[in-house]
This record gives sequence, structure tokens and C-alpha cells, in this order.
Amino acid sequence: MNYYSEQDIRQIVADVISRSGLSAGKEMEIPVEISARHIHLSRADKEALFGAGYILTRKRDLSQPGQYLCEERVKLVTATGEIANVAVLGPERKETQVELSLTDARILGLKPPVRLSGDLQNAADVIIVGPRGVITAEGSVIVAKAHVHMTPADAQKYGVEHGQSVSIRIGKERSVTLNDVQVRVSKDFALAVHIDYDEANAARVSGGNIVGYLRKDG
Amino acid sequence: MNYYSEQDIRQIVADVISRSGLSAGKEMEIPVEISARHIHLSRADKEALFGAGYILTRKRDLSQPGQYLCEERVKLVTATGEIANVAVLGPERKETQVELSLTDARILGLKPPVRLSGDLQNAADVIIVGPRGVITAEGSVIVAKAHVHMTPADAQKYGVEHGQSVSIRIGKERSVTLNDVQVRVSKDFALAVHIDYDEANAARVSGGNIVGYLRKDG
Repeated sequence: MNYYSEQDIRQIVADVISRSGLSAGKEMEIPVEISARHIHLSRADKEALFGAGYILTRKRDLSQPGQYLCEERVKLVTATGEIANVAVLGPERKETQVELSLTDARILGLKPPVRLSGDLQNAADVIIVGPRGVITAEGSVIVAKAHVHMTPADAQKYGVEHGQSVSIRIGKERSVTLNDVQVRVSKDFALAVHIDYDEANAARVSGGNIVGYLRKDG
Repeated sequence: MNYYSEQDIRQIVADVISRSGLSAGKEMEIPVEISARHIHLSRADKEALFGAGYILTRKRDLSQPGQYLCEERVKLVTATGEIANVAVLGPERKETQVELSLTDARILGLKPPVRLSGDLQNAADVIIVGPRGVITAEGSVIVAKAHVHMTPADAQKYGVEHGQSVSIRIGKERSVTLNDVQVRVSKDFALAVHIDYDEANAARVSGGNIVGYLRKDG
């Protein structure tokens, strides 16, 4: 049996705490981007809205490799409201997906669920109006759940894993912590936290070069 | 050399943890209310908008004693946009004050500061249109800083003081912590955290009976 001094014990406790992943609020800087309302279209829906064989026009690349903003715009319509000039993102996807803020959803009288992109469970319905046609996009509308895109190297640097939940603190004049931000890891991603305009406004952040602070939840 | 009992060691561990800045995150429930955009009018501005000697019509009482929603509505106008049907609150105040969300401010092209009610330093300008007149309300527009109203008895219960900053966690599907919520203590207050619609939407809370969790910042 060993006998430990108080100093030994203090050292052991500090060591256990440091290995436990608990932290006294250690935060690491991370870039943050704001996503405005937008829509991804399936090939069939794109053709229904813009015409058979239509090809979307790339306007500019987005931060995530391969993703781009198109010149085309559509209008969203419900019984209670409409929102014009909604951005179309490329490339096409398997399923049409409309990403709105809750502020937008209120205008349209919709109650979409908060979901990661690609998860359309219980997603809301909306009518989409294009220059050549109108469709009812059933189960297409979500509010994007805040998430972080990163490469495997980034994940190692931040000490996090794909699917993990972290918290992100943003804003100075109005500091807000988003408590359940999902980590998405892929070699095809570029490092960025994606939030929507409600989250940005709640923290009074805008424009480019927004810095957030990532913290691993205990 | 000393030999420590289990109880001694437990005490040492608790001591190390407490010095490490770690916290078990003790939170206390607190009711939360969402404030929509509204305006408080000075007597002179009220008369300019509604006519000499006009008396505002009480529609219903608000949660804070003495405050009430009026039947009257006004329109806000700037070079870039307008918002109609803005609620007027009573009673009159010494200075006209317009409280908007940042979403509203974007519609009007304004960049108001985030301020506690009554603090109009660097507040933005807006044109207010009433049924009998139009005024330019200079230095009147703010975005309300999130705050907690409480009585001295509440303050004692929560262990906080007037002017102190606390954090408030709200939302389930989308959990957000507002990090710098100001405590306002007065015997004339009723217990409630006041947030605006941007903060509510960022946390996906709405309607009545919203529960928040107050935590004293370290």
C-alpha cells in the first residue's frame, strides 16, 4: 500500500480531471457562417419549375466544396403568406429541401422541425413557384439545425468526432451559446459553423469573418 | 507525513474541483416572456401622432405591474422600408422609445444598439406615422437587451443582485443560452425574463409558459 501526501493527492485529482475531458471552459476559435433561406431541388422538381432539360446557372461557389449559389430564384407560397426571391443552391439533390428560418416559417404559417440537412422526417409542405411551373413540395421544409463542417484533420485538432454535439459561443454585444451544434466530419468539407439568421440576430453577428468559440459539452 | 482518511480525500477533491473553476452548472427555473416590437411614447409625441389631449386606450394589462398594451397602433418608416401595426404601450414615458428585433431593424435598414429600456445612447432614428400626424423620432430605436425583472424577494431566492449579469438557458429542440442577461430588481416588478423574437426563434420557443434556467455566471 502506498501513502500519499496531500500534494500527491492534489496532483492525482488534477490529473484525473484533466483526462476526464472536463474543462474549466476551454474554448477554441472557429469560423462561423450565416446561411440565408434557400432551396435544394431534385432533378424532377427543377424541370417542373424551370422546364424540361433546364440547367441551373452557377452564380458563385459557396464555402463547402462543390456547393454553389445559382442565378435562379423561386417563390414560396402558402395559404397565409409568400416569400419571393428564394435562393436556389446547386448541385441537384435526390430530394427537394427548403431551409427556412423560424422567422420565415412564421410568415408562411408553417411549423417545420429543426433538422440536419438531408433529414426530412416530418418536414413541412410548401408550394414552390418557378418561371415555368408550380409544384407542391410535400415534406420538404426544415429549419436547419446548427452544425459544424470539418475535415478529419480539423476534428483531430478540436478533439471531436462526427456526430458529436458541441456548443458554440458567438456575439459580443449580445453573447449567445448554441448548446447543441452537431459536428459533421468529411474530407470534402471546409471548416465552418453554419447558423441561420435567427441565431445570427439573437447574437447580433452579421457579415463575414464571424468568430465563434467551440466548447466540448461535458 | 500525514495519512488521509477517505473523508479527508473527498474534501481535498472537492476543494481542487472548486478551485479549478469547474462548476456543476446549478440552474434554477425561471419564467420567460417574449416581447414583440413595440413603442413607448412621450406625451408630446403622443399628441403629435394622435392629436392634442388624446388619451391612449388600454387594451390589456401586461405582466409588469402598471404597464399595458393600447388599442392604438403606429407605422414605422425609413428610406428602405416600413413596418405597420406597431403596438403602443402605456403609460406615457419621459422619452419616446422604439423597441425592435434585429430582424425588424434589417427591414428598416437601421442598426440600433442593444440596450436596456431607458438607455437611448446612440439609439437610431425612425419616422413614426400616426392617424393625425408624423414625427421623426431621433435617437429612439433600440434592440432590447435581454433582462430579468424580479422583486427583492425573488433576488434573494435566486441569490442575485440588481445590475448583475446572469445566463438564461431556453429551448429544447434548439437549446440556446443567453450569456449576458441583466438582473433588474424592484418591488414593482413581476418575475419574468424578457427576450425578443430573434432570441425566441433562435431557441424555438413560443407562446406562453416558457421555462428558462437561470445560472449565475462564475
